[in-house]
Amino acid sequence: MSESGGEARVEPRRLKGFRDITAAELRARNWIITRIREVYERYGFVPLETPTLEYVDVLGKFLPDADTPEGGIFALRDEDQNWIALRYDLTAPLSRFVAMNPDLPLPYRRYQVGPVYRVEKPGPGRFREFYQFDFDSVGTASMLADAEVCMVACDTLEALAIPRGAYLVRVNNRKVLNGVLEVLGGGRPVPAETARAILRSIDKLDRVGLDGVKLLLGPGRRDESGDFTPGAGLASEQVDVVLRYLAISPDDRRKVLEETHRLVGDTDVGCQGVEELARIDEALVSAGYQADRVSFDPTVVRGLTYYTGPVFEAVLTFGVQEEDGITRQFGSVFGGGRYDDLVARFTRQRVPATGASIGVDRLLAALLALGKLQKGPATAKVLVTRLDDRYNAEYQKMAVELRSAGLNTELYVGTQGVGKQFKYASSTGKVVAVVVGEDEMKSSQVSIKDLRLGEAVSKELGQDRKAWLEQQPAQVTVPRGEMVRKVREILARYSIG
Amino acid sequence: MSESGGEARVEPRRLKGFRDITAAELRARNWIITRIREVYERYGFVPLETPTLEYVDVLGKFLPDADTPEGGIFALRDEDQNWIALRYDLTAPLSRFVAMNPDLPLPYRRYQVGPVYRVEKPGPGRFREFYQFDFDSVGTASMLADAEVCMVACDTLEALAIPRGAYLVRVNNRKVLNGVLEVLGGGRPVPAETARAILRSIDKLDRVGLDGVKLLLGPGRRDESGDFTPGAGLASEQVDVVLRYLAISPDDRRKVLEETHRLVGDTDVGCQGVEELARIDEALVSAGYQADRVSFDPTVVRGLTYYTGPVFEAVLTFGVQEEDGITRQFGSVFGGGRYDDLVARFTRQRVPATGASIGVDRLLAALLALGKLQKGPATAKVLVTRLDDRYNAEYQKMAVELRSAGLNTELYVGTQGVGKQFKYASSTGKVVAVVVGEDEMKSSQVSIKDLRLGEAVSKELGQDRKAWLEQQPAQVTVPRGEMVRKVREILARYSIG
Repeated sequence: MSESGGEARVEPRRLKGFRDITAAELRARNWIITRIREVYERYGFVPLETPTLEYVDVLGKFLPDADTPEGGIFALRDEDQNWIALRYDLTAPLSRFVAMNPDLPLPYRRYQVGPVYRVEKPGPGRFREFYQFDFDSVGTASMLADAEVCMVACDTLEALAIPRGAYLVRVNNRKVLNGVLEVLGGGRPVPAETARAILRSIDKLDRVGLDGVKLLLGPGRRDESGDFTPGAGLASEQVDVVLRYLAISPDDRRKVLEETHRLVGDTDVGCQGVEELARIDEALVSAGYQADRVSFDPTVVRGLTYYTGPVFEAVLTFGVQEEDGITRQFGSVFGGGRYDDLVARFTRQRVPATGASIGVDRLLAALLALGKLQKGPATAKVLVTRLDDRYNAEYQKMAVELRSAGLNTELYVGTQGVGKQFKYASSTGKVVAVVVGEDEMKSSQVSIKDLRLGEAVSKELGQDRKAWLEQQPAQVTVPRGEMVRKVREILARYSIG
Repeated sequence: MSESGGEARVEPRRLKGFRDITAAELRARNWIITRIREVYERYGFVPLETPTLEYVDVLGKFLPDADTPEGGIFALRDEDQNWIALRYDLTAPLSRFVAMNPDLPLPYRRYQVGPVYRVEKPGPGRFREFYQFDFDSVGTASMLADAEVCMVACDTLEALAIPRGAYLVRVNNRKVLNGVLEVLGGGRPVPAETARAILRSIDKLDRVGLDGVKLLLGPGRRDESGDFTPGAGLASEQVDVVLRYLAISPDDRRKVLEETHRLVGDTDVGCQGVEELARIDEALVSAGYQADRVSFDPTVVRGLTYYTGPVFEAVLTFGVQEEDGITRQFGSVFGGGRYDDLVARFTRQRVPATGASIGVDRLLAALLALGKLQKGPATAKVLVTRLDDRYNAEYQKMAVELRSAGLNTELYVGTQGVGKQFKYASSTGKVVAVVVGEDEMKSSQVSIKDLRLGEAVSKELGQDRKAWLEQQPAQVTVPRGEMVRKVREILARYSIG
């Protein structure tokens, strides 16, 4: 009946850029998602889940980097030959959902967590399937919603045990950037092509430094490898305007606003941007979020082309030692912005919206590297071993009894001997093994083995191990009725159960 | 900067067979998943997450119904022109994972929850993306593992508040079925084609009744609509063997074993199947799972071709009224079996395995229809309204204070008047609205409105509403310092908070 009968052997392999995630990391991710959800719920956001697959035109083409292979998405044709694709973010599907539900009470405030898919060049910490956890307010132009994005970002990171001072939410406004562009355009908007090139240049500040940005804004830049990136082609006095803007120090929010205002003061769009940031500042001050948590930072661009106003990101301000031993800054774990035109793609009516997304896997990597992660639900710490199949009924009853007492318990269902069973117990993280052989059966007793004590002993004592073991029993034999109590007692040694 | 500028309007639409799942249902699903996870953990299963996408040959072709459109899967080519596809179950990826990790301690006992994808004809309650929650023991041939599958199924359904007696786990063994086939083949295996046709016929018992199965085993059957299904072509004495087998009553496990043994007694495979079921019975008796929870049922086949031994399903034994008003049996919510050859597709070495899968969405539909569902995490029940933007700082502080007190609270961030805000509060499930206007600001007070009381009053009293409201204030005004206490008091009326 088996499909494989006589067929060619299949090579077991995984797609590149994808991974199998095992117990410890999954428990950690589950813990993170639960904490984030609690914060989002605290602010009144409610859950939504949209499909993994959508029509390609519904998703639109908003990927941060347009020159990824295959347009950056996993696309296929459905049975009617329409192009469909795996979602690459959770914002495009949200816009589609809002457009399809005109009777939704607005503002619609939802969160969504799940994997998204991008055809990117895989690399360390860079996967083609990764988790995002978004929250958005759709249907309001109020800057209170944008201020709330910053507050939620702070609360979320603190709920994940990242202390104040170890993260920073950085805010800018696309309208301010457009104001700067208008200034250097001599009061007129610069061509869209040039505008994009300028924003891309600023976005590279972290990587290429101020001198690098200067080259990218002007004639272009050749990197160490010899590759040449063409510049935005600005004249040097235009480059100076941008550099003056980037030089504004983000330490004091009111001061950033004053200096920015001075720079863009002549332009309507710039003024509007400064005004919006002022509203955000007010709300943050009222709620008690000072510049040590939320700064206004002229260097923040955020890649997505659909942002229309405030943009946000949160960075971790400490370094983390990576696999190759080099300490790196973790960079952005949280990003978002206002996107007032995204629903209008479907409805032709402007539905202002703002929100942000947490890169769950990135945050998970950071917290794991920091050793900051609490554990998820407890795994079974008790193994009921099987010495003799004649006693299977008894083993079964013991496992049921331990589980009924609230102790997660595995009954060994394999077919190997007791020595291998102890090894299995240790390698799957068990702390206690329950053992019943002929002696115990006859005397209605149970032997209970502390697997960690055994381990510690065997490492510490070397030669003297045997003598020590005789004195300090890692294994005790108790009456059958005492089993649960004794198992609990051993688990308590390790603060478990 | 916007992508949509000047482009054609995109029609907001969803793929057929896919859906958007909103807050109430998601909270319910989250509750279900948490309960199931607790049971799986109680038995020592640990989490695993494999990718959504796999190579097509790795997944294999094991779909229950081969004549689904497009082979039943969502497939595409990756950038190297290899065929890849969205997983259609969680078992094929598990087998691939085990084959890729030869050093895994065995038995490897994992659970996995997530969506799977099938190109099926969409219908009521039938979707192309749906959640499964699997658990499996890989690397053991012991029937203790199979007995455990039954126990876990019972414990899971009871953890979901489905009482004993309202569900039944039904067990059969493919080896017994093969024994029956050998008997009617006169001691020799029947051709694979015929065997499949016979199993398919038995599998349709629920739908076509015993007379229908009789026709399907013999010459074929014409249904009410006039469609003809060709039969397995058995002679009438062969049909009788199958019918005698199907007539064995599943009430008493030992009796089923005796009668089955009598029927298949001559065949090795049949005897082996009976012997395996006897081991399962022993384990279940030891653990206290009697025939009111787990029955041996000759009519159980389970579709998947890869099963090699015991097969399981759990059915809900009560009817549920569906949208069209007709009460229907819910049928199988849980299915599985032993599949000893699945890892060997990759390794050429037999790795015996057994497990089962819960259809989360089906169970969710059943529990929702029953009104049996507890709620997930509490949504925000408090809305801080905004009467006057001059007081935004105060509104912000009030929201922060309520949240700090542990009350999930939404600050209204929209731009409409207070009447619309109350409507918004009710339609998003809020119970309390906090109101501060000029009067309250001047007197350092807060007005607090019980939104449910208001609703009840307006419905009950009709004309007398105004007079009643004056006596029984659904809205009270208290000093600012009393806000949290008063909000809590109102929430307590509805057992919230």
